[in-house]
Amino acid sequence: MNANILSKAYLDVRRLTETLSAPLGAEDQTVQSMPDVSPTKWHRAHTSWFFETFILGTFTDWKSPYPRYRELFNSYYEQVGCQFPREQRGVLSRPTVSEVSEYRGIVDNAMLELLSSSRATEDVLALVELGLHHEQQHQELLLMDAKHVLSCNPLDPCYSNTTLPSIHRSTPEHSWLSFDGGLANIGHQGEGFHFDNEGPQHRVWLDPYQVSRSLVTASQWLTFMEDDGYQRPELWLADGWRTVQREGWTAPLYWTKKQGEWNVFTLGGTRQLIAHEPVCHVSFYEADAYCRWLGARLPTEAEWERASVISHDPKRTRLFDVGALHPWPPTEHSPANPSSLDQMFGEVWQWTGSAYRPYPGYVPPTNAVGEYNGKFMNNQYVLRGGSAFTPSGHVRSTYRNFYPPHSRWMLSGVRLAKDL
Amino acid sequence: MNANILSKAYLDVRRLTETLSAPLGAEDQTVQSMPDVSPTKWHRAHTSWFFETFILGTFTDWKSPYPRYRELFNSYYEQVGCQFPREQRGVLSRPTVSEVSEYRGIVDNAMLELLSSSRATEDVLALVELGLHHEQQHQELLLMDAKHVLSCNPLDPCYSNTTLPSIHRSTPEHSWLSFDGGLANIGHQGEGFHFDNEGPQHRVWLDPYQVSRSLVTASQWLTFMEDDGYQRPELWLADGWRTVQREGWTAPLYWTKKQGEWNVFTLGGTRQLIAHEPVCHVSFYEADAYCRWLGARLPTEAEWERASVISHDPKRTRLFDVGALHPWPPTEHSPANPSSLDQMFGEVWQWTGSAYRPYPGYVPPTNAVGEYNGKFMNNQYVLRGGSAFTPSGHVRSTYRNFYPPHSRWMLSGVRLAKDL
Amino acid sequence: MNANILSKAYLDVRRLTETLSAPLGAEDQTVQSMPDVSPTKWHRAHTSWFFETFILGTFTDWKSPYPRYRELFNSYYEQVGCQFPREQRGVLSRPTVSEVSEYRGIVDNAMLELLSSSRATEDVLALVELGLHHEQQHQELLLMDAKHVLSCNPLDPCYSNTTLPSIHRSTPEHSWLSFDGGLANIGHQGEGFHFDNEGPQHRVWLDPYQVSRSLVTASQWLTFMEDDGYQRPELWLADGWRTVQREGWTAPLYWTKKQGEWNVFTLGGTRQLIAHEPVCHVSFYEADAYCRWLGARLPTEAEWERASVISHDPKRTRLFDVGALHPWPPTEHSPANPSSLDQMFGEVWQWTGSAYRPYPGYVPPTNAVGEYNGKFMNNQYVLRGGSAFTPSGHVRSTYRNFYPPHSRWMLSGVRLAKDL
Amino acid sequence: MNANILSKAYLDVRRLTETLSAPLGAEDQTVQSMPDVSPTKWHRAHTSWFFETFILGTFTDWKSPYPRYRELFNSYYEQVGCQFPREQRGVLSRPTVSEVSEYRGIVDNAMLELLSSSRATEDVLALVELGLHHEQQHQELLLMDAKHVLSCNPLDPCYSNTTLPSIHRSTPEHSWLSFDGGLANIGHQGEGFHFDNEGPQHRVWLDPYQVSRSLVTASQWLTFMEDDGYQRPELWLADGWRTVQREGWTAPLYWTKKQGEWNVFTLGGTRQLIAHEPVCHVSFYEADAYCRWLGARLPTEAEWERASVISHDPKRTRLFDVGALHPWPPTEHSPANPSSLDQMFGEVWQWTGSAYRPYPGYVPPTNAVGEYNGKFMNNQYVLRGGSAFTPSGHVRSTYRNFYPPHSRWMLSGVRLAKDL
Repeated sequence: MNANILSKAYLDVRRLTETLSAPLGAEDQTVQSMPDVSPTKWHRAHTSWFFETFILGTFTDWKSPYPRYRELFNSYYEQVGCQFPREQRGVLSRPTVSEVSEYRGIVDNAMLELLSSSRATEDVLALVELGLHHEQQHQELLLMDAKHVLSCNPLDPCYSNTTLPSIHRSTPEHSWLSFDGGLANIGHQGEGFHFDNEGPQHRVWLDPYQVSRSLVTASQWLTFMEDDGYQRPELWLADGWRTVQREGWTAPLYWTKKQGEWNVFTLGGTRQLIAHEPVCHVSFYEADAYCRWLGARLPTEAEWERASVISHDPKRTRLFDVGALHPWPPTEHSPANPSSLDQMFGEVWQWTGSAYRPYPGYVPPTNAVGEYNGKFMNNQYVLRGGSAFTPSGHVRSTYRNFYPPHSRWMLSGVRLAKDL
Repeated sequence: MNANILSKAYLDVRRLTETLSAPLGAEDQTVQSMPDVSPTKWHRAHTSWFFETFILGTFTDWKSPYPRYRELFNSYYEQVGCQFPREQRGVLSRPTVSEVSEYRGIVDNAMLELLSSSRATEDVLALVELGLHHEQQHQELLLMDAKHVLSCNPLDPCYSNTTLPSIHRSTPEHSWLSFDGGLANIGHQGEGFHFDNEGPQHRVWLDPYQVSRSLVTASQWLTFMEDDGYQRPELWLADGWRTVQREGWTAPLYWTKKQGEWNVFTLGGTRQLIAHEPVCHVSFYEADAYCRWLGARLPTEAEWERASVISHDPKRTRLFDVGALHPWPPTEHSPANPSSLDQMFGEVWQWTGSAYRPYPGYVPPTNAVGEYNGKFMNNQYVLRGGSAFTPSGHVRSTYRNFYPPHSRWMLSGVRLAKDL
Repeated sequence: MNANILSKAYLDVRRLTETLSAPLGAEDQTVQSMPDVSPTKWHRAHTSWFFETFILGTFTDWKSPYPRYRELFNSYYEQVGCQFPREQRGVLSRPTVSEVSEYRGIVDNAMLELLSSSRATEDVLALVELGLHHEQQHQELLLMDAKHVLSCNPLDPCYSNTTLPSIHRSTPEHSWLSFDGGLANIGHQGEGFHFDNEGPQHRVWLDPYQVSRSLVTASQWLTFMEDDGYQRPELWLADGWRTVQREGWTAPLYWTKKQGEWNVFTLGGTRQLIAHEPVCHVSFYEADAYCRWLGARLPTEAEWERASVISHDPKRTRLFDVGALHPWPPTEHSPANPSSLDQMFGEVWQWTGSAYRPYPGYVPPTNAVGEYNGKFMNNQYVLRGGSAFTPSGHVRSTYRNFYPPHSRWMLSGVRLAKDL
Repeated sequence: MNANILSKAYLDVRRLTETLSAPLGAEDQTVQSMPDVSPTKWHRAHTSWFFETFILGTFTDWKSPYPRYRELFNSYYEQVGCQFPREQRGVLSRPTVSEVSEYRGIVDNAMLELLSSSRATEDVLALVELGLHHEQQHQELLLMDAKHVLSCNPLDPCYSNTTLPSIHRSTPEHSWLSFDGGLANIGHQGEGFHFDNEGPQHRVWLDPYQVSRSLVTASQWLTFMEDDGYQRPELWLADGWRTVQREGWTAPLYWTKKQGEWNVFTLGGTRQLIAHEPVCHVSFYEADAYCRWLGARLPTEAEWERASVISHDPKRTRLFDVGALHPWPPTEHSPANPSSLDQMFGEVWQWTGSAYRPYPGYVPPTNAVGEYNGKFMNNQYVLRGGSAFTPSGHVRSTYRNFYPPHSRWMLSGVRLAKDL
């Protein structure tokens, strides 16, 4: 991207963060409801810190007006220095929400000036592009985190009024698409932005396999629950079973039963569960147990990636820009045509059975940005496809998202696979 | 008190709460920095809940506009029903600060109407008076808690600019006043408001004893520290020593050393320690260790009470209304005259060596208000005298404050005693 | 005591420890079932360590054959040096049980030689006497701890076959004995061994009071349970209620329900509960809640002590030497005569409502033995009277035992009091 | 294997367990020093339970003489029923060591009778073989666990006197052997015992790679330590760095520094570190950080397996039967010849960079034995090659051992890999 286009992209992305924060008051933006969650205002400040630290502070004679933010809004970059403890972010009443807005403005001015100057070298532009994708990730986190904060409140607050399509269609019961085996090229290659963890491209041998055309639905999940899915240890990984018992899980996160009816908490408030909406907010442990119960398994990330390249229907993509703020039940027959996979991008992140490890030949960048992905390649699983919280233009076939197997506050769901 | 006077008192007390909250923004009012701390807006709501629940809800046909507040702002009254978990109060972004203001206004209108009506019976008036003293306790808590919240912030925020007197005088090194032994009448009797835990009045045998005329000062505490007070297990109760090691205590709370100088964090920000200011924010364990180191002991609560009745100098009282927001170093010769005790009321709560247990014959009220004091009479120690955060008119000789022996976020200090 | 008599007492006490350990195999003697519990072999070694450290190592030119035991078997004496962590005692497979026996033999030989020599000064004799009382305390602990270890084993092991008297008599429903008020002399004075915490004798003012003649029985406790005693928060101290919920208490420790019948685990194995046996293994919190439920209260330690001096029936004392290994249901009419208190000594330690704090004028010894009692005077309550595990000759009217309010693995029970 | 040969193997394996336990007294056999560790007598009982439950109880009319052992010695088989809590195994003083011996004898008699009878069907024989390999795994665990128990004891106990070879040779500094890329067949196929997790055989694409000929040595590890390897966060996975800080790791487990010299605790007691012995008792996190520091990486399990098939020197295998009880420094030039890999089997388990996940097409057995491996395929890494604690005949090229990345009480070490 050239500097002009990037300036425009910069403005767009930065503005979206503010738009997403707007429905959240100063109190909402301050709360941290669990260690995984960060306050809204922290996300807004940290994304600015990223530009300030890695670009303004490196490529210009920038003198930070807020030198103490260097530590306060450092998420996890050891090479930048100390970090204010993650689980204490909710203790910070200052800087206030409006001081954070001010901070964002100062950084934006300096960034836009830099981008329109001769100092906007290739290195700078590459880091700006990274910074924007970084901010898009935090846009998704901001929504996930705000949802969790609001969900903890017995007053059942609402982030934004949302409506659902009037027509819901059912999905077929696990219909499958088959794929040949062979050597596949997996990972990103060539032009276009990608994170370091998506490369290098490499060959993977795949045996023939099948992938389910649609996502597992709420009503399918209810069948699992009614068949005592959460009570039968033989369906679970040992760690998963321990988690189920320790946490008292009996349903996906945000599902509650009231007077015999299942409800689900969304950013639009609590509403009745819809049979054909994709199941959402399930952990890897739950996804894995569901598969075992059904006699299927999760796809590997290579299987998923190859299937998405060959067979997904791009018209059936529903990311954040659709404005649903939640995965939708299908409104049209699904899948659209017999040879394509439905709901591959958007709706929910799809758990794969692949541990998040470096690709063969992967070497992280040598500077602080090298801490971005590499050091987290442990005890996590890869998810693919994006969600209803993912900003448009952010996700692609090779995109590797990752979470620990017990996490479920992100929009995570299930697509099935099988050996042929 | 009659209804008219009480109406005026009601307005005064309620207004003071708002005045105390005013310097705190929405973010400040939302944060809970440790389980002991409650957010400012929680204090503001809970004190209103007290009037609503125990008075409006009991003596009028009140229909709460916020029925869910009943659980949300119930602190610990089992007989009122469930309570939102104390350590989760910081998770509540809603109701917002301004919604809490609205709530206060609604309760105030209803209360003032009730007080000016014929339904303002003796029972009602007694509970209103209790509610006002309850709110005064929360005014002190509000300040203690806000101080803790701000202290956790590396930006070193300031609640309010405060100034110190230009003249500081030294205090004599532990000069003593002697008291005869004999039977003493301890506890409240007669007219005037008092909490249930201050009675019934009863006889206690006292052996002759001495009490130090002034509070232990910062410079005296530094001598203890320099004599390895925090490193010598023989000075400490076993539980105290365990706490010192687990928490890494080496000085009172809010003391920090910078470039060889001791600073102290106050509501006016961080400033240099003043030699003759009373030591503050020490736990019972520290107070007890200091006494052992010096060859003295803490007074019992009976000794303190009797001494305060006989010998305190009322002109030397410095509660919240002085506006210092911190215990002051003496500005005049201390004590004022050789036969009186100085600094008995105000400045800092003074630890006694008495476990907080019911007085002989104590019976708590039978309704929910009976949970106010009685159920906490365990594993705590009594403190006497009030502090620079205590509202004027709130404290008296028989007043029993209480905290666990490890607590130190309140304004707590030390007065010494000795056997004769 | 002179050296001869003391030598004999030494042999008796030391032998009893070995007799108590004899039914316990090497495995039993090694296990630590919770942090409060110490392994049998640890008790056997530590009591030897006491003689070695405070007597042989101080008054003779003793060179320890096991220098590393100094740290290993130091319980909590900071002035002796480091201590192997208490909660790790169960990790020590060495020294073995037979090595501990050897150690005991070596210490015994040296001690007996010292006692028969001219170096057996008054100071030595006083410390030997203290050491024997110390060992008696550990004899009780040894039994309590072994009971807990065995109770954790699903194989329901038995320490020793015990039989119960064939005749059980009922106790009257809380019959009371009244005592006048006035000044009482409390605490030990004069000849005879006593621990430092029993003195100095001092005056306490008492209002007139009543004490129940017998201990609360199992069947009385069942009535409390059936009246939802463990489910009603208004009966409990706040800390107690939290403990009930966290621990899931629904009955005294060691009570289990099988097929509708209540059983109790004893050192003689599990057997049916007997209606009129004293309730045992209840915490202070439970004792306190029971009293509140009944409209009574626990006696203060001064009330108990004065009552025991005036009115107890010495023929109704059942300590360890009776061989019951558990408090017995009364076998004779109880109380024996209308003006005496029954079951004051032996059966169960009786909770008082008094926090364990130093008596007025109490000063601990200045050497390491000064750590024996003084540093534990915090967050504990006093119990009086001894139990079925207490060695004969160990307890007296002024004896102050103490435990934290949540503890219940000792033989603890309830006697009631009331204001007159 | 036919029944005769299996009977002999049964006797051999069972006898070895008893031989390994013989140096451990009743106390040693009872202790559990951390939740991961099981007491020796538990291992001895559980391995018998395995034969009793899955063979005698299934294929004969066996009536267990110890029905309560079914729960007590069930490790983790949910389909068999409840399990006594793992972390509480050290609380069980009963059954005693000699009762466990008795239990073993009873099971052995019944098993040998079954094996010599006509009921010894193929199914039985297969399960017996599995049971023997199971017991061999517990032999290794028994040694690892006993080592940990003894290591916690400040008396520095010794399991068995061991001697070291008088000649130590140095290893070359990371010399490498290269392997071509291509499709490799990975996993077990054909005759011979193997665990379910070793199959099915499947194709994996490998890029060309290098493997280091020898194991990383103690002296090489010291260089890492001296280069601040344990203090530099950029070398570590994020979880690893957190673990280093939380645990205070500064060296491999069992290394201690005394007067400037590094010592290592072994089953033969504590001795000086030898420069050329393989580093041992390092976690995955440490192995991974070492590789990053050196610019290398861990081999994948497929790379390791293919390399071991092609190039290992079988004469350089040192498992348990060598009697060293610890990995040895090389006594001959290493590697023996330029085209072979040294120390591939025995010495230490070698961490791979592969998460422990099911092979493509893996399906666990459907009965309780299906819980043996499958449910642990999460948050662990694969180790290959066996160790000085591994019984002879137990390990092979396709063998997949697995531990969580923070574990280090097993004999785990490091072999390096590189891209070509």
